[in-house]
Amino acid sequence: MSVDGIAFVYRQLGPEDGVPLILLIHLAGNLDNWDPRVVDGLAARRRVITFGNRGVGGSGGATPDTIEGMARDAVRFIRTLGFDQVDVFGLSLGGFIAQVIAEEEPRLVRKVILAGTGPAGGPGIDKVPALAVQGTIKGALTRQDPKLSLFFTDTASGRRAGRALLRRLKERTDNRDKDISLPSLRAQLKAVKRWGRQAPSDLSAIRQPVLVANGENDRMVPSQNTLDLATRLPRSELVPLYPDSGHGGIFQNHEDFVARALSFLES
Amino acid sequence: MSVDGIAFVYRQLGPEDGVPLILLIHLAGNLDNWDPRVVDGLAARRRVITFGNRGVGGSGGATPDTIEGMARDAVRFIRTLGFDQVDVFGLSLGGFIAQVIAEEEPRLVRKVILAGTGPAGGPGIDKVPALAVQGTIKGALTRQDPKLSLFFTDTASGRRAGRALLRRLKERTDNRDKDISLPSLRAQLKAVKRWGRQAPSDLSAIRQPVLVANGENDRMVPSQNTLDLATRLPRSELVPLYPDSGHGGIFQNHEDFVARALSFLES
Repeated sequence: MSVDGIAFVYRQLGPEDGVPLILLIHLAGNLDNWDPRVVDGLAARRRVITFGNRGVGGSGGATPDTIEGMARDAVRFIRTLGFDQVDVFGLSLGGFIAQVIAEEEPRLVRKVILAGTGPAGGPGIDKVPALAVQGTIKGALTRQDPKLSLFFTDTASGRRAGRALLRRLKERTDNRDKDISLPSLRAQLKAVKRWGRQAPSDLSAIRQPVLVANGENDRMVPSQNTLDLATRLPRSELVPLYPDSGHGGIFQNHEDFVARALSFLES
Repeated sequence: MSVDGIAFVYRQLGPEDGVPLILLIHLAGNLDNWDPRVVDGLAARRRVITFGNRGVGGSGGATPDTIEGMARDAVRFIRTLGFDQVDVFGLSLGGFIAQVIAEEEPRLVRKVILAGTGPAGGPGIDKVPALAVQGTIKGALTRQDPKLSLFFTDTASGRRAGRALLRRLKERTDNRDKDISLPSLRAQLKAVKRWGRQAPSDLSAIRQPVLVANGENDRMVPSQNTLDLATRLPRSELVPLYPDSGHGGIFQNHEDFVARALSFLES
Protein backbone atom coordinates (compact mmCIF):
# COMPACT_ATOMS: atom_id res chain seq x y z
CA MET A 1 0.00 0.00 0.00
CA SER A 2 1.25 3.49 -0.78
CA VAL A 3 1.52 5.98 2.11
CA ASP A 4 2.52 9.45 0.89
CA GLY A 5 4.10 7.78 -2.14
CA ILE A 6 6.01 5.16 -0.12
CA ALA A 7 5.11 1.47 -0.38
CA PHE A 8 4.25 -0.09 3.01
CA VAL A 9 3.99 -3.87 3.39
CA TYR A 10 1.24 -5.25 5.60
CA ARG A 11 -0.85 -8.32 6.29
CA GLN A 12 -4.48 -8.40 7.33
CA LEU A 13 -5.99 -11.38 9.11
CA GLY A 14 -9.23 -12.33 10.84
CA PRO A 15 -12.76 -10.93 10.44
CA GLU A 16 -13.21 -8.01 8.06
CA ASP A 17 -15.16 -5.89 10.49
CA GLY A 18 -14.78 -4.57 14.00
CA VAL A 19 -12.17 -2.19 15.35
CA PRO A 20 -8.88 -3.30 13.78
CA LEU A 21 -5.93 -4.18 15.97
CA ILE A 22 -2.69 -2.67 14.64
CA LEU A 23 0.45 -4.58 15.63
CA LEU A 24 3.76 -2.77 16.14
CA ILE A 25 6.78 -5.07 16.15
CA HIS A 26 10.05 -4.99 18.12
CA LEU A 27 13.52 -3.70 17.20
CA ALA A 28 14.90 -5.27 14.02
CA GLY A 29 11.66 -7.17 13.53
CA ASN A 30 9.69 -7.52 10.32
CA LEU A 31 6.29 -9.07 9.53
CA ASP A 32 7.70 -12.52 10.18
CA ASN A 33 8.81 -11.78 13.74
CA TRP A 34 5.32 -11.98 15.15
CA ASP A 35 4.64 -15.31 16.82
CA PRO A 36 2.03 -16.96 14.56
CA ARG A 37 0.26 -18.29 17.69
CA VAL A 38 -0.26 -14.74 18.92
CA VAL A 39 -1.30 -13.27 15.56
CA ASP A 40 -3.55 -16.20 14.64
CA GLY A 41 -4.92 -16.36 18.17
CA LEU A 42 -5.91 -12.71 18.09
CA ALA A 43 -7.16 -12.99 14.49
CA ALA A 44 -9.51 -15.76 15.50
CA ARG A 45 -11.75 -13.04 16.90
CA ARG A 46 -10.27 -9.64 15.88
CA ARG A 47 -9.30 -7.99 12.62
CA VAL A 48 -5.50 -7.94 12.95
CA ILE A 49 -3.09 -5.89 10.85
CA THR A 50 0.67 -6.31 10.97
CA PHE A 51 2.74 -3.87 8.94
CA GLY A 52 6.26 -2.78 8.21
CA ASN A 53 6.77 0.81 9.29
CA ARG A 54 8.74 3.18 7.06
CA GLY A 55 12.04 1.59 5.97
CA VAL A 56 11.39 -1.65 7.89
CA GLY A 57 11.51 -4.99 6.05
CA GLY A 58 9.80 -4.69 2.67
CA SER A 59 8.45 -1.17 3.35
CA GLY A 60 10.09 1.65 1.42
CA GLY A 61 11.56 4.91 2.66
CA ALA A 62 14.05 5.73 5.35
CA THR A 63 13.39 4.70 8.96
CA PRO A 64 13.22 7.77 11.23
CA ASP A 65 15.61 7.90 14.17
CA THR A 66 13.00 9.00 16.69
CA ILE A 67 10.05 7.17 18.22
CA GLU A 68 7.93 10.24 17.48
CA GLY A 69 8.78 10.01 13.76
CA MET A 70 7.89 6.31 13.75
CA ALA A 71 4.59 7.10 15.48
CA ARG A 72 3.75 9.70 12.82
CA ASP A 73 4.47 7.18 10.07
CA ALA A 74 2.29 4.57 11.76
CA VAL A 75 -0.58 7.06 12.07
CA ARG A 76 -0.28 7.93 8.37
CA PHE A 77 -0.38 4.23 7.54
CA ILE A 78 -3.47 3.69 9.68
CA ARG A 79 -5.26 6.70 8.14
CA THR A 80 -4.30 5.65 4.61
CA LEU A 81 -6.02 2.32 5.29
CA GLY A 82 -9.10 4.46 5.96
CA PHE A 83 -9.54 3.73 9.65
CA ASP A 84 -10.73 6.36 12.09
CA GLN A 85 -10.62 4.08 15.13
CA VAL A 86 -8.15 1.34 15.92
CA ASP A 87 -6.66 -0.61 18.79
CA VAL A 88 -2.86 -0.70 18.93
CA PHE A 89 -0.64 -3.44 20.30
CA GLY A 90 3.07 -2.70 20.58
CA LEU A 91 5.88 -5.02 21.62
CA SER A 92 9.10 -3.45 22.96
CA LEU A 93 10.08 -0.74 20.41
CA GLY A 94 6.51 -1.12 19.09
CA GLY A 95 5.26 -0.34 22.59
CA PHE A 96 7.21 2.92 22.67
CA ILE A 97 5.56 3.87 19.38
CA ALA A 98 2.12 2.79 20.61
CA GLN A 99 2.41 5.08 23.65
CA VAL A 100 3.15 8.10 21.45
CA ILE A 101 0.31 7.27 19.07
CA ALA A 102 -2.14 6.83 21.96
CA GLU A 103 -1.16 10.15 23.49
CA GLU A 104 -1.09 12.16 20.27
CA GLU A 105 -4.18 10.60 18.68
CA PRO A 106 -6.70 10.16 21.49
CA ARG A 107 -9.62 9.87 19.05
CA LEU A 108 -7.91 7.46 16.68
CA VAL A 109 -6.88 4.98 19.36
CA ARG A 110 -9.53 3.09 21.34
CA LYS A 111 -7.46 0.61 23.39
CA VAL A 112 -3.80 -0.17 23.79
CA ILE A 113 -1.79 -3.31 24.58
CA LEU A 114 1.82 -2.81 25.69
CA ALA A 115 4.16 -5.79 26.03
CA GLY A 116 7.84 -5.95 26.99
CA THR A 117 8.11 -2.20 26.92
CA GLY A 118 8.46 0.88 29.06
CA PRO A 119 7.90 4.62 29.30
CA ALA A 120 10.29 7.23 27.91
CA GLY A 121 13.25 7.58 30.27
CA GLY A 122 12.55 4.20 31.85
CA PRO A 123 15.47 2.52 33.66
CA GLY A 124 17.76 0.49 31.43
CA ILE A 125 16.03 1.36 28.15
CA ASP A 126 19.03 3.32 26.87
CA LYS A 127 21.05 0.11 27.30
CA VAL A 128 18.81 -1.86 24.93
CA PRO A 129 20.91 -1.06 21.82
CA ALA A 130 24.15 -2.16 23.48
CA LEU A 131 22.48 -5.34 24.80
CA ALA A 132 21.03 -6.11 21.38
CA VAL A 133 24.39 -5.62 19.66
CA GLN A 134 26.22 -7.67 22.31
CA GLY A 135 23.61 -10.42 22.14
CA THR A 136 23.91 -10.52 18.37
CA ILE A 137 27.69 -10.79 18.47
CA LYS A 138 27.55 -13.40 21.19
CA GLY A 139 25.01 -15.27 19.10
CA ALA A 140 27.35 -15.18 16.12
CA LEU A 141 30.29 -16.42 18.19
CA THR A 142 28.26 -19.29 19.61
CA ARG A 143 26.23 -19.96 16.45
CA GLN A 144 22.99 -19.43 18.37
CA ASP A 145 20.05 -17.26 17.43
CA PRO A 146 20.49 -14.10 19.57
CA LYS A 147 16.78 -14.17 20.34
CA LEU A 148 17.35 -17.12 22.65
CA SER A 149 19.42 -15.07 25.08
CA LEU A 150 17.69 -11.73 24.52
CA PHE A 151 14.05 -12.88 24.72
CA PHE A 152 14.17 -15.88 27.03
CA THR A 153 15.47 -16.86 30.42
CA ASP A 154 18.53 -19.09 30.64
CA THR A 155 16.63 -21.92 32.32
CA ALA A 156 15.47 -25.29 31.00
CA SER A 157 11.97 -24.01 30.29
CA GLY A 158 13.19 -20.68 28.94
CA ARG A 159 15.51 -22.41 26.49
CA ARG A 160 12.77 -24.83 25.46
CA ALA A 161 10.36 -21.94 24.91
CA GLY A 162 12.97 -20.07 22.87
CA ARG A 163 13.62 -22.99 20.57
CA ALA A 164 9.88 -23.51 20.16
CA LEU A 165 9.41 -19.86 19.16
CA LEU A 166 12.27 -20.09 16.62
CA ARG A 167 10.50 -23.08 15.06
CA ARG A 168 7.16 -21.24 14.95
CA LEU A 169 8.76 -18.20 13.31
CA LYS A 170 9.83 -20.48 10.44
CA GLU A 171 6.36 -21.92 9.86
CA ARG A 172 5.56 -19.46 7.08
CA THR A 173 7.41 -20.50 3.96
CA ASP A 174 5.81 -18.33 1.27
CA ASN A 175 5.82 -14.59 0.81
CA ARG A 176 8.12 -13.87 3.72
CA ASP A 177 9.04 -10.27 4.48
CA LYS A 178 12.46 -8.82 3.68
CA ASP A 179 15.06 -8.61 6.46
CA ILE A 180 15.54 -5.19 7.98
CA SER A 181 18.44 -3.27 6.45
CA LEU A 182 21.45 -2.15 8.46
CA PRO A 183 20.68 1.60 8.03
CA SER A 184 17.10 1.04 9.25
CA LEU A 185 18.31 -0.94 12.23
CA ARG A 186 20.80 1.79 13.02
CA ALA A 187 18.02 4.40 12.98
CA GLN A 188 15.94 2.21 15.29
CA LEU A 189 18.84 1.77 17.72
CA LYS A 190 19.30 5.52 17.81
CA ALA A 191 15.60 6.06 18.43
CA VAL A 192 15.54 3.53 21.27
CA LYS A 193 18.58 5.11 22.93
CA ARG A 194 16.93 8.52 22.69
CA TRP A 195 13.69 7.19 24.15
CA GLY A 196 15.65 5.74 27.05
CA ARG A 197 17.40 9.04 27.69
CA GLN A 198 14.32 11.24 27.31
CA ALA A 199 12.73 12.96 30.29
CA PRO A 200 10.17 10.59 31.84
CA SER A 201 6.89 10.91 29.96
CA ASP A 202 3.68 12.04 31.66
CA LEU A 203 1.72 8.85 31.28
CA SER A 204 -1.43 10.48 32.65
CA ALA A 205 -1.89 11.95 29.17
CA ILE A 206 -2.74 8.47 27.86
CA ARG A 207 -6.46 8.23 28.62
CA GLN A 208 -7.27 4.97 26.88
CA PRO A 209 -7.57 1.60 28.60
CA VAL A 210 -4.17 -0.10 28.45
CA LEU A 211 -3.33 -3.76 28.99
CA VAL A 212 0.27 -4.19 30.16
CA ALA A 213 2.16 -7.51 29.96
CA ASN A 214 5.67 -8.91 30.21
CA GLY A 215 7.85 -11.66 31.59
CA GLU A 216 9.17 -11.12 35.10
CA ASN A 217 12.82 -11.44 33.99
CA ASP A 218 13.01 -9.11 31.00
CA ARG A 219 16.72 -8.26 30.58
CA MET A 220 16.15 -6.07 27.52
CA VAL A 221 13.50 -3.63 28.80
CA PRO A 222 13.75 -4.40 32.52
CA SER A 223 10.44 -5.67 33.91
CA GLN A 224 10.20 -2.84 36.43
CA ASN A 225 9.27 -0.66 33.44
CA THR A 226 6.17 -2.79 32.94
CA LEU A 227 5.19 -2.27 36.56
CA ASP A 228 5.86 1.45 36.22
CA LEU A 229 3.54 1.63 33.20
CA ALA A 230 0.84 -0.22 35.11
CA THR A 231 1.23 2.12 38.07
CA ARG A 232 1.30 5.41 36.23
CA LEU A 233 -1.13 4.83 33.34
CA PRO A 234 -4.53 6.08 34.57
CA ARG A 235 -6.54 3.22 33.04
CA SER A 236 -4.20 0.26 33.09
CA GLU A 237 -4.69 -3.45 33.58
CA LEU A 238 -1.63 -5.53 34.43
CA VAL A 239 -1.25 -9.13 33.35
CA PRO A 240 0.61 -10.71 36.29
CA LEU A 241 4.24 -10.85 35.12
CA TYR A 242 4.91 -14.26 33.54
CA PRO A 243 7.23 -16.35 35.74
CA ASP A 244 10.52 -17.64 34.32
CA SER A 245 9.94 -15.49 31.23
CA GLY A 246 11.81 -12.57 29.71
CA HIS A 247 11.32 -10.06 26.92
CA GLY A 248 9.51 -12.72 24.87
CA GLY A 249 7.13 -13.49 27.74
CA ILE A 250 3.96 -13.00 25.68
CA PHE A 251 5.27 -15.47 23.09
CA GLN A 252 6.38 -17.96 25.71
CA ASN A 253 2.92 -17.74 27.33
CA HIS A 254 0.93 -17.15 24.16
CA GLU A 255 -2.19 -19.05 25.17
CA ASP A 256 -2.70 -17.09 28.35
CA PHE A 257 -1.72 -13.82 26.72
CA VAL A 258 -4.05 -14.20 23.74
CA ALA A 259 -6.96 -15.06 26.01
CA ARG A 260 -6.31 -12.01 28.20
CA ALA A 261 -5.77 -9.71 25.22
CA LEU A 262 -9.01 -10.79 23.59
CA SER A 263 -10.99 -10.37 26.76
CA PHE A 264 -9.43 -6.92 27.31
CA LEU A 265 -10.25 -5.82 23.75
CA GLU A 266 -13.81 -7.15 24.00
CA SER A 267 -14.68 -5.96 27.48
CA MET B 1 50.15 -25.96 28.70
CA SER B 2 50.72 -23.58 31.59
CA VAL B 3 52.28 -20.20 30.82
CA ASP B 4 52.99 -18.21 34.00
CA GLY B 5 50.25 -20.23 35.69
CA ILE B 6 47.68 -19.71 32.93
CA ALA B 7 46.52 -22.65 30.79
CA PHE B 8 47.08 -22.08 27.05
CA VAL B 9 45.44 -24.38 24.49
CA TYR B 10 47.48 -25.37 21.44
CA ARG B 11 47.79 -27.98 18.72
CA GLN B 12 50.99 -29.27 17.20
CA LEU B 13 51.07 -30.89 13.78
CA GLY B 14 53.64 -32.13 11.26
CA PRO B 15 57.22 -33.28 11.75
CA GLU B 16 58.66 -33.07 15.25
CA ASP B 17 61.83 -31.33 14.21
CA GLY B 18 62.82 -28.23 12.28
CA VAL B 19 62.09 -24.60 13.08
CA PRO B 20 58.47 -24.54 14.28
CA LEU B 21 55.94 -22.29 12.57
CA ILE B 22 53.75 -20.48 15.10
CA LEU B 23 50.32 -19.50 13.77
CA LEU B 24 48.56 -16.36 15.04
CA ILE B 25 44.83 -16.27 14.24
CA HIS B 26 42.51 -13.39 13.31
CA LEU B 27 40.07 -11.35 15.42
CA ALA B 28 37.52 -13.49 17.27
CA GLY B 29 39.17 -16.63 15.95
CA ASN B 30 40.08 -19.73 17.93
CA LEU B 31 41.99 -22.90 17.03
CA ASP B 32 39.17 -23.98 14.75
CA ASN B 33 39.27 -20.86 12.59
CA TRP B 34 42.37 -21.97 10.70
CA ASP B 35 41.53 -23.45 7.32
CA PRO B 36 42.47 -27.14 7.66
CA ARG B 37 43.85 -27.06 4.09
CA VAL B 38 46.33 -24.35 5.11
CA VAL B 39 47.33 -25.92 8.42
CA ASP B 40 47.55 -29.46 7.04
CA GLY B 41 49.27 -28.19 3.90
CA LEU B 42 51.96 -26.45 5.92
CA ALA B 43 52.21 -29.35 8.38
CA ALA B 44 52.97 -31.73 5.52
CA ARG B 45 56.49 -30.31 5.61
CA ARG B 46 56.79 -28.02 8.66
CA ARG B 47 56.23 -28.38 12.36
CA VAL B 48 53.12 -26.24 12.84
CA ILE B 49 51.75 -24.92 16.14
CA THR B 50 48.40 -23.20 16.48
CA PHE B 51 47.51 -21.79 19.88
CA GLY B 52 44.98 -19.72 21.72
CA ASN B 53 46.59 -16.57 23.07
CA ARG B 54 45.74 -15.39 26.58
CA GLY B 55 41.94 -15.32 27.10
CA VAL B 56 41.18 -16.58 23.58
CA GLY B 57 39.05 -19.72 23.10
CA GLY B 58 40.02 -22.34 25.63
CA SER B 59 43.05 -20.42 26.91
CA GLY B 60 42.76 -18.93 30.38
CA GLY B 61 43.43 -15.41 31.58
CA ALA B 62 42.25 -12.03 30.38
CA THR B 63 42.94 -10.93 26.81
CA PRO B 64 45.07 -7.74 26.79
CA ASP B 65 43.66 -4.73 24.96
CA THR B 66 46.90 -3.89 23.14
CA ILE B 67 48.72 -5.68 20.33
CA GLU B 68 51.93 -5.25 22.31
CA GLY B 69 50.40 -7.12 25.27
CA MET B 70 49.26 -9.93 22.96
CA ALA B 71 52.76 -10.11 21.46
CA ARG B 72 54.30 -10.43 24.92
CA ASP B 73 51.90 -13.27 25.77
CA ALA B 74 52.71 -15.05 22.51
CA VAL B 75 56.46 -14.75 23.21
CA ARG B 76 55.95 -16.20 26.68
CA PHE B 77 54.00 -19.08 25.17
CA ILE B 78 56.74 -19.76 22.60
CA ARG B 79 59.47 -19.65 25.25
CA THR B 80 57.49 -21.88 27.59
CA LEU B 81 57.37 -24.47 24.79
CA GLY B 82 61.17 -24.31 24.96
CA PHE B 83 61.86 -22.83 21.53
CA ASP B 84 64.66 -20.36 20.92
CA GLN B 85 63.96 -19.97 17.21
CA VAL B 86 60.61 -19.98 15.43
CA ASP B 87 58.90 -18.77 12.29
CA VAL B 88 55.68 -16.82 12.83
CA PHE B 89 52.67 -16.61 10.55
CA GLY B 90 50.00 -14.07 11.44
CA LEU B 91 46.64 -13.50 9.77
CA SER B 92 44.94 -10.10 10.22
CA LEU B 93 45.06 -9.36 13.99
CA GLY B 94 47.62 -12.19 14.16
CA GLY B 95 49.70 -10.30 11.61
CA PHE B 96 49.75 -7.21 13.82
CA ILE B 97 51.02 -9.36 16.67
CA ALA B 98 53.58 -11.08 14.43
CA GLN B 99 55.08 -7.72 13.43
CA VAL B 100 55.59 -6.72 17.06
CA ILE B 101 57.12 -10.08 17.94
CA ALA B 102 59.49 -9.92 14.96
CA GLU B 103 60.62 -6.43 15.86
CA GLU B 104 60.99 -7.02 19.59
CA GLU B 105 62.50 -10.51 19.39
CA PRO B 106 64.92 -10.43 16.44
CA ARG B 107 66.77 -13.51 17.68
CA LEU B 108 63.68 -15.55 18.45
CA VAL B 109 62.03 -15.03 15.07
CA ARG B 110 63.67 -16.41 11.93
CA LYS B 111 61.06 -15.73 9.22
CA VAL B 112 57.64 -14.11 9.13
CA ILE B 113 54.49 -14.61 7.05
CA LEU B 114 51.92 -11.81 7.10
CA ALA B 115 48.49 -12.29 5.52
CA GLY B 116 45.48 -9.95 5.34
CA THR B 117 47.17 -7.49 7.64
CA GLY B 118 48.84 -4.11 7.79
CA PRO B 119 51.27 -1.89 9.69
CA ALA B 120 50.33 0.16 12.75
CA GLY B 121 48.46 3.28 11.61
CA GLY B 122 47.59 1.69 8.26
CA PRO B 123 44.63 3.17 6.39
CA GLY B 124 41.25 1.75 7.37
CA ILE B 125 42.55 -0.48 10.16
CA ASP B 126 40.80 1.56 12.86
CA LYS B 127 37.52 0.80 11.03
CA VAL B 128 37.96 -2.98 11.35
CA PRO B 129 36.05 -3.21 14.67
CA ALA B 130 33.07 -1.29 13.27
CA LEU B 131 33.08 -3.38 10.09
CA ALA B 132 33.28 -6.59 12.08
CA VAL B 133 30.38 -5.57 14.33
CA GLN B 134 28.28 -4.39 11.37
CA GLY B 135 29.05 -7.55 9.41
CA THR B 136 28.06 -9.67 12.40
CA ILE B 137 24.77 -7.85 12.84
CA LYS B 138 24.04 -7.98 9.12
CA GLY B 139 24.83 -11.69 9.23
CA ALA B 140 22.37 -12.19 12.08
CA LEU B 141 19.64 -10.27 10.25
CA THR B 142 20.14 -12.28 7.07
CA ARG B 143 20.93 -15.57 8.81
CA GLN B 144 24.29 -15.77 7.03
CA ASP B 145 27.70 -16.43 8.51
CA PRO B 146 29.33 -12.97 8.75
CA LYS B 147 32.56 -14.46 7.42
CA LEU B 148 31.01 -14.68 3.98
CA SER B 149 30.77 -10.90 3.62
CA LEU B 150 33.83 -10.01 5.71
CA PHE B 151 36.33 -12.48 4.22
CA PHE B 152 35.12 -12.98 0.64
CA THR B 153 34.15 -10.92 -2.38
CA ASP B 154 30.49 -10.66 -3.29
CA THR B 155 30.95 -12.44 -6.62
CA ALA B 156 29.96 -15.94 -7.75
CA SER B 157 33.43 -17.33 -7.09
CA GLY B 158 33.85 -15.37 -3.85
CA ARG B 159 30.56 -16.71 -2.49
CA ARG B 160 31.44 -20.25 -3.59
CA ALA B 161 34.85 -19.98 -1.91
CA GLY B 162 33.22 -18.65 1.27
CA ARG B 163 30.75 -21.51 1.50
CA ALA B 164 33.57 -23.99 0.85
CA LEU B 165 35.62 -22.51 3.70
CA LEU B 166 32.66 -22.68 6.09
CA ARG B 167 32.33 -26.39 5.24
CA ARG B 168 36.05 -26.97 5.79
CA LEU B 169 35.93 -25.21 9.16
CA LYS B 170 33.35 -27.78 10.28
CA GLU B 171 35.43 -30.80 9.28
CA ARG B 172 36.86 -31.27 12.75
CA THR B 173 34.18 -32.80 14.94
CA ASP B 174 36.15 -33.80 18.05
CA ASN B 175 37.97 -31.72 20.61
CA ARG B 176 36.93 -28.39 19.14
CA ASP B 177 38.14 -25.21 20.80
CA LYS B 178 35.88 -23.02 22.93
CA ASP B 179 34.29 -19.95 21.32
CA ILE B 180 35.90 -16.65 22.18
CA SER B 181 34.18 -14.85 25.05
CA LEU B 182 32.59 -11.43 24.68
CA PRO B 183 35.08 -9.71 27.06
CA SER B 184 38.03 -11.17 25.11
CA LEU B 185 36.54 -10.07 21.82
CA ARG B 186 35.98 -6.61 23.24
CA ALA B 187 39.65 -6.41 24.30
CA GLN B 188 40.70 -7.50 20.81
CA LEU B 189 38.49 -4.88 19.16
CA LYS B 190 40.03 -2.21 21.36
CA ALA B 191 43.54 -3.40 20.51
CA VAL B 192 42.81 -3.38 16.78
CA LYS B 193 41.39 0.13 16.94
CA ARG B 194 44.45 1.33 18.82
CA TRP B 195 46.78 -0.33 16.31
CA GLY B 196 44.92 1.44 13.50
CA ARG B 197 45.26 4.80 15.25
CA GLN B 198 48.89 4.40 16.28
CA ALA B 199 51.64 6.41 14.64
CA PRO B 200 52.88 4.50 11.57
CA SER B 201 55.45 1.95 12.66
CA ASP B 202 59.03 2.00 11.38
CA LEU B 203 58.99 -1.24 9.46
CA SER B 204 62.73 -1.03 8.76
CA ALA B 205 63.21 -2.35 12.30
CA ILE B 206 61.91 -5.75 11.15
CA ARG B 207 65.04 -7.35 9.73
CA GLN B 208 63.75 -10.86 9.07
CA PRO B 209 62.61 -12.12 5.66
CA VAL B 210 58.85 -11.56 5.44
CA LEU B 211 56.38 -13.12 3.01
CA VAL B 212 53.33 -10.87 2.50
CA ALA B 213 50.03 -12.11 1.05
CA ASN B 214 46.40 -11.04 0.68
CA GLY B 215 43.43 -10.86 -1.65
CA GLU B 216 43.25 -7.80 -3.85
CA ASN B 217 39.81 -6.80 -2.51
CA ASP B 218 40.28 -6.97 1.25
CA ARG B 219 37.53 -4.79 2.74
CA MET B 220 38.56 -5.47 6.35
CA VAL B 221 42.26 -4.53 6.31
CA PRO B 222 42.35 -2.73 2.95
CA SER B 223 44.73 -4.42 0.50
CA GLN B 224 46.84 -1.29 0.12
CA ASN B 225 48.18 -2.13 3.60
CA THR B 226 49.61 -5.35 2.18
CA LEU B 227 51.38 -3.40 -0.58
CA ASP B 228 52.64 -0.91 2.00
CA LEU B 229 54.12 -3.75 4.08
CA ALA B 230 55.80 -5.19 1.00
CA THR B 231 57.21 -1.77 0.09
CA ARG B 232 58.48 -0.74 3.49
CA LEU B 233 59.70 -4.02 4.98
CA PRO B 234 63.42 -4.26 4.14
CA ARG B 235 63.37 -8.00 3.30
CA SER B 236 59.90 -8.63 1.96
CA GLU B 237 58.53 -10.95 -0.69
CA LEU B 238 55.06 -10.19 -2.02
CA VAL B 239 52.70 -12.90 -3.19
CA PRO B 240 50.88 -11.23 -6.11
CA LEU B 241 47.53 -10.15 -4.60
CA TYR B 242 44.95 -12.86 -5.23
CA PRO B 243 42.33 -11.72 -7.76
CA ASP B 244 38.64 -11.69 -6.81
CA SER B 245 39.64 -12.42 -3.21
CA GLY B 246 39.30 -10.51 0.03
CA HIS B 247 40.47 -10.81 3.63
CA GLY B 248 40.24 -14.61 3.35
CA GLY B 249 42.39 -14.63 0.20
CA ILE B 250 44.92 -17.13 1.55
CA PHE B 251 42.10 -19.55 2.41
CA GLN B 252 40.38 -19.04 -0.94
CA ASN B 253 43.69 -19.72 -2.72
CA HIS B 254 45.08 -22.21 -0.23
CA GLU B 255 46.92 -24.41 -2.71
CA ASP B 256 48.91 -21.57 -4.17
CA PHE B 257 49.47 -19.97 -0.79
CA VAL B 258 50.68 -23.14 0.93
CA ALA B 259 53.12 -23.84 -1.90
CA ARG B 260 54.53 -20.32 -1.74
CA ALA B 261 54.71 -20.30 2.05
CA LEU B 262 56.58 -23.62 2.13
CA SER B 263 59.04 -22.51 -0.49
CA PHE B 264 59.57 -19.21 1.37
CA LEU B 265 60.18 -21.02 4.66
CA GLU B 266 62.54 -23.54 3.05
CA SER B 267 64.54 -21.20 0.83
